[in-house]
Amino acid sequence: MVNVGVLGATGMVGQRFIQLLDKHPDFEITALAASSRSAGKRYEDATTWYLDDAMPESVKDIVVSETDPSSISNDVDILFSSLPTENAAVVEPKFAEKFIVASNASAMRMEKDVPLVIPEVNHEFLDIIEVQQKNRGWDGFIVTNPNCSTIALTLTLKPIYDNYDINRVYVSTMQAVSGAGYNGVPSMAIVDNLVPFIGGEEEKMESETLHLLGTLDGLEVKPAQFGLTASCHRVAVLDGHTESVFIELDQDINIDDIKNDMANFKSLPQELDLYSAPKNPVIVKEEDNRPQPRMDRNADGGMAVTVGRLRKDPVFDNSFKYVLVGHNTIRGAAGASILNAELINKTIL
Amino acid sequence: MVNVGVLGATGMVGQRFIQLLDKHPDFEITALAASSRSAGKRYEDATTWYLDDAMPESVKDIVVSETDPSSISNDVDILFSSLPTENAAVVEPKFAEKFIVASNASAMRMEKDVPLVIPEVNHEFLDIIEVQQKNRGWDGFIVTNPNCSTIALTLTLKPIYDNYDINRVYVSTMQAVSGAGYNGVPSMAIVDNLVPFIGGEEEKMESETLHLLGTLDGLEVKPAQFGLTASCHRVAVLDGHTESVFIELDQDINIDDIKNDMANFKSLPQELDLYSAPKNPVIVKEEDNRPQPRMDRNADGGMAVTVGRLRKDPVFDNSFKYVLVGHNTIRGAAGASILNAELINKTIL
Amino acid sequence: MVNVGVLGATGMVGQRFIQLLDKHPDFEITALAASSRSAGKRYEDATTWYLDDAMPESVKDIVVSETDPSSISNDVDILFSSLPTENAAVVEPKFAEKFIVASNASAMRMEKDVPLVIPEVNHEFLDIIEVQQKNRGWDGFIVTNPNCSTIALTLTLKPIYDNYDINRVYVSTMQAVSGAGYNGVPSMAIVDNLVPFIGGEEEKMESETLHLLGTLDGLEVKPAQFGLTASCHRVAVLDGHTESVFIELDQDINIDDIKNDMANFKSLPQELDLYSAPKNPVIVKEEDNRPQPRMDRNADGGMAVTVGRLRKDPVFDNSFKYVLVGHNTIRGAAGASILNAELINKTIL
Amino acid sequence: MVNVGVLGATGMVGQRFIQLLDKHPDFEITALAASSRSAGKRYEDATTWYLDDAMPESVKDIVVSETDPSSISNDVDILFSSLPTENAAVVEPKFAEKFIVASNASAMRMEKDVPLVIPEVNHEFLDIIEVQQKNRGWDGFIVTNPNCSTIALTLTLKPIYDNYDINRVYVSTMQAVSGAGYNGVPSMAIVDNLVPFIGGEEEKMESETLHLLGTLDGLEVKPAQFGLTASCHRVAVLDGHTESVFIELDQDINIDDIKNDMANFKSLPQELDLYSAPKNPVIVKEEDNRPQPRMDRNADGGMAVTVGRLRKDPVFDNSFKYVLVGHNTIRGAAGASILNAELINKTIL
Repeated sequence: MVNVGVLGATGMVGQRFIQLLDKHPDFEITALAASSRSAGKRYEDATTWYLDDAMPESVKDIVVSETDPSSISNDVDILFSSLPTENAAVVEPKFAEKFIVASNASAMRMEKDVPLVIPEVNHEFLDIIEVQQKNRGWDGFIVTNPNCSTIALTLTLKPIYDNYDINRVYVSTMQAVSGAGYNGVPSMAIVDNLVPFIGGEEEKMESETLHLLGTLDGLEVKPAQFGLTASCHRVAVLDGHTESVFIELDQDINIDDIKNDMANFKSLPQELDLYSAPKNPVIVKEEDNRPQPRMDRNADGGMAVTVGRLRKDPVFDNSFKYVLVGHNTIRGAAGASILNAELINKTIL
Repeated sequence: MVNVGVLGATGMVGQRFIQLLDKHPDFEITALAASSRSAGKRYEDATTWYLDDAMPESVKDIVVSETDPSSISNDVDILFSSLPTENAAVVEPKFAEKFIVASNASAMRMEKDVPLVIPEVNHEFLDIIEVQQKNRGWDGFIVTNPNCSTIALTLTLKPIYDNYDINRVYVSTMQAVSGAGYNGVPSMAIVDNLVPFIGGEEEKMESETLHLLGTLDGLEVKPAQFGLTASCHRVAVLDGHTESVFIELDQDINIDDIKNDMANFKSLPQELDLYSAPKNPVIVKEEDNRPQPRMDRNADGGMAVTVGRLRKDPVFDNSFKYVLVGHNTIRGAAGASILNAELINKTIL
Repeated sequence: MVNVGVLGATGMVGQRFIQLLDKHPDFEITALAASSRSAGKRYEDATTWYLDDAMPESVKDIVVSETDPSSISNDVDILFSSLPTENAAVVEPKFAEKFIVASNASAMRMEKDVPLVIPEVNHEFLDIIEVQQKNRGWDGFIVTNPNCSTIALTLTLKPIYDNYDINRVYVSTMQAVSGAGYNGVPSMAIVDNLVPFIGGEEEKMESETLHLLGTLDGLEVKPAQFGLTASCHRVAVLDGHTESVFIELDQDINIDDIKNDMANFKSLPQELDLYSAPKNPVIVKEEDNRPQPRMDRNADGGMAVTVGRLRKDPVFDNSFKYVLVGHNTIRGAAGASILNAELINKTIL
Repeated sequence: MVNVGVLGATGMVGQRFIQLLDKHPDFEITALAASSRSAGKRYEDATTWYLDDAMPESVKDIVVSETDPSSISNDVDILFSSLPTENAAVVEPKFAEKFIVASNASAMRMEKDVPLVIPEVNHEFLDIIEVQQKNRGWDGFIVTNPNCSTIALTLTLKPIYDNYDINRVYVSTMQAVSGAGYNGVPSMAIVDNLVPFIGGEEEKMESETLHLLGTLDGLEVKPAQFGLTASCHRVAVLDGHTESVFIELDQDINIDDIKNDMANFKSLPQELDLYSAPKNPVIVKEEDNRPQPRMDRNADGGMAVTVGRLRKDPVFDNSFKYVLVGHNTIRGAAGASILNAELINKTIL
């Protein structure tokens, strides 16, 4: 067993980490860190638990540490981070001096020597770790996963991008309130309403997606070269981001081929049979009225993205449209970091 | 006062007609028609009232008529129709033999000799009435308004289309449940969920919008020639459709010019000072997090469309994006038919 | 394995039966019956699946039967019924001529010779089956479970009633929309709203609860003699009924004793270790803000009722109050019938 | 015109004050106070406006004052307070040295020399002001209105209490999220959920109601002597508290008499024709499925309470039950303070 810890353990994504790591065959939680307000308390006493499933017994008695490397035992190998951005920018580098940090925070994602990885999409970016350790003189390192909306979208673009040249992508999101944290969206803002703005989200989708689909030139990332524009909206859904996607290729479309490319897409995590890897990263539904967040967010334990309404665009040449749903705090956050760690554990450690 | 009636008077759009016509300075409701189940009863007894405002006193005692021209008194001039499509296809032509029918139904919208009209956009299409009456030998006529999502979108496109050549429009909608009628969307389908499909809606948006922005060639409509593709979704909002719009022009964008074009847009209904005409058909908001359906759907009595997040597209040349909210059962249905009737009353009768 | 079937298999409770019976160690679904519209089709083709978990593979290919005893193979032993009341009244007796019918329908509940049973509360009422078979000349029999709100309430009253004399119970419910069936509550009725009426519900709670807590006099039920009054309301919750309960005993209250009575309550299903029996039928939470339907409805697979805010009444003598949450379509419907069948299977068959 | 100000002007109840005072025939807003963060800014710049109706033009340019008597001009006569409790306890007495304070805060409600008043219920309690001014040596004074749930309930109890002896009242509430302030209830807490706890609410209902229905003995309040117990719950409704009420009298019930007592109830505000007074403080609906918060909260401008499902209790003697809806931030907060001020303006100033 690899000993792991969670930074930001009392928050919503922190709780998902704990839920997903409970009963994990290779990872065992031995450290939980949070703010000074929680440090020193039993995890159960420090935490208002938000998830439908009850808090795992195994973590209740763990005493919460300060978010400081000196507070974490040296026998911990991997730290999962769901720290707030500003905090992560300061703290994660300190942890990376001796620990592996698998981070869901956005702070370090676009640093040149920090791999931003979805295992099914660009596992080869892990090679960048070498540069990072050399540059910074760290014994540990940081690996990051993208923003929640980006992950779900990129998983569906990858099998297309592998087979065709993409010209344009237009994406409009309908995102769950859990993405903003437990207290992020007041009920007064979302009951009988929606909010057409999520700070920084469109910029992340527009840059991270191209980065992830890019190539390594030496150990530098050359982003993919097509255009992708996003508009992001918050709707009255608890978990599960929905995205409406329009794509133009530079060639004729056979919609069945595209469907097959998506439905049959598999990659390294499936080959390595990683514990958290979904059998199929993309599930394609035929029903008119799917995917729906409540019905599809938990597909394959919340790690698969569900696509539906895949249809030829009746208006634009070489174009098609579809709708996707992905679980924002599992595949889009905690599960993403864990899958990164599983890949590292299997291929690097 | 012009005597008017409502066909489909007990349904949700029928009730909006009644609400908006109550206290109307030029129109007086003297006839209400509905299905045989309701016919013969007092309106109050026949109707489960759905709107927040109470049922107007003035209609409570009106005895509901059969949906049949012979049941409607000859001194009625205009009939507002919110009949279901299949029903409208059969019944509206019969009424048009002697009455003016201002219809919100989709059945006759794309008939060559039936004007599909938004008064601010293409009032000149009313000239087609002449052809219709000649073709069909009717003393009355039918005028239609577009689908709810189309109206809101087209009102925002018109000031752009008047000033620039549009290349492409991508629109993704987040539509209110009232658009499906009172019983249309079960709560089990929409609480903590959304539904990414609305039958026929995308096709209507794609064809009606270009039709409305088209020109009259003789008395035949030549649709606008740009491409517009739509993806339509139902969300947990009671009233007010939200649309996320991406536009590419064939020239450079000055976003302030576009903002001004929209904000200053006025047309014939404003000039004629029609009773239901909004002061500004398009209201442009500067706040990041607007428009929101609950906050903006009732702008100018629900007859104005609110635009926000108007921004240059950072990715595509000559492109910009915005979000709009329009009230689907007021500006997008009953109010649309009434404004058509007010225009007819002022310019034709 | 006992072969079982489901009547009303395509509806919402029917789907819960299928979900709960999949992987059952003792029961195997071999028959699914529904209306003529569905009969003859594969279950997967006949059904719009509503539950978050996917349809079990094992039932997809079962051909749906007519709801008629002659359409059901003789090697089926138990039929679970989620038929609508009027239908159940006619059809269940026909099935009972040769099958065991474990029914969630209300039609036969208050018949003198039909046991209305919650295994933890009044398992001895199964003795009435003997009378039923004699009276009606049936080889099979009908056993029923109570209304969803009644079951949850009665499970919490039983440990109190066993230890004290109850004078009065006042209960006000906040019930989930799934209780009305998938199409039962339009979204227009419940978003930003609640509905203070559920037809027949209060009457069922007021009579069934006393019946269940009653005693057998010979083979006739003598209902419990205290007063219980209910007010029932529908709220915007998908699953899980919440009930606010006020109780007056005829003696002094020690609130810790009552808490212990509830928390330690076990009965025959726990002793017999029935597969669907919750470890503790009543779970008592200490947190101020619990139970909550989304957080507590799935306690012990949805078969336990969660009580919270158990507190001495500061106003009335000998009185206390609490709030409970129970899963209305699991413990309150399909799970209730299955637990009845498990008890019958263990003790009678 | 009487010059008035609002303390806590940027919050949710503060905004209701402004909305209701705009166009008021007797009161003119000339001062708006808020926290230091807002002080010195134009009201429009200091405020995120939450209400569906737009911010009134008349207040946009008012410069927000510090919440300090020295910052408020001496020509202001009445200050409406929606300050948080702890803040109100310190600040309101300072303002009362020279201003009239009509407060919605709970801080001073149960002080012996501070009148807690609903004009329709106990206007005579205003006599206590004399004691307050003498005791404290103030030129101004404080008058308070009760908690939102209490007001709605007490308005319906008053016509009963005037005519019968009440033995017991059991009330279970389903309260709107706006009652907790804009950021009070996270959407994660209430979508597909409810919360069965509102801190201090039950205690307020239990004590304030009896206080309001009490009598003046000299200038001291003798509370009413019956028992009232409450259980309070938060549901996914924006505005409008719903309460399920069970009442036992000490005599036989004639349900029609009770209905008439409620429906015909009028009091001093109706006699004096106060501007904000509803025509009927209690509206009784006959429909089975009313009152509903979305449909009934705005009755008579949000100042009337709507009662429905008024029915004889089938179980307990001398008992009946009903459901009520009242607008929590209009009749239950800002409108309540304003009606108090109107009464003072008409009868004392």
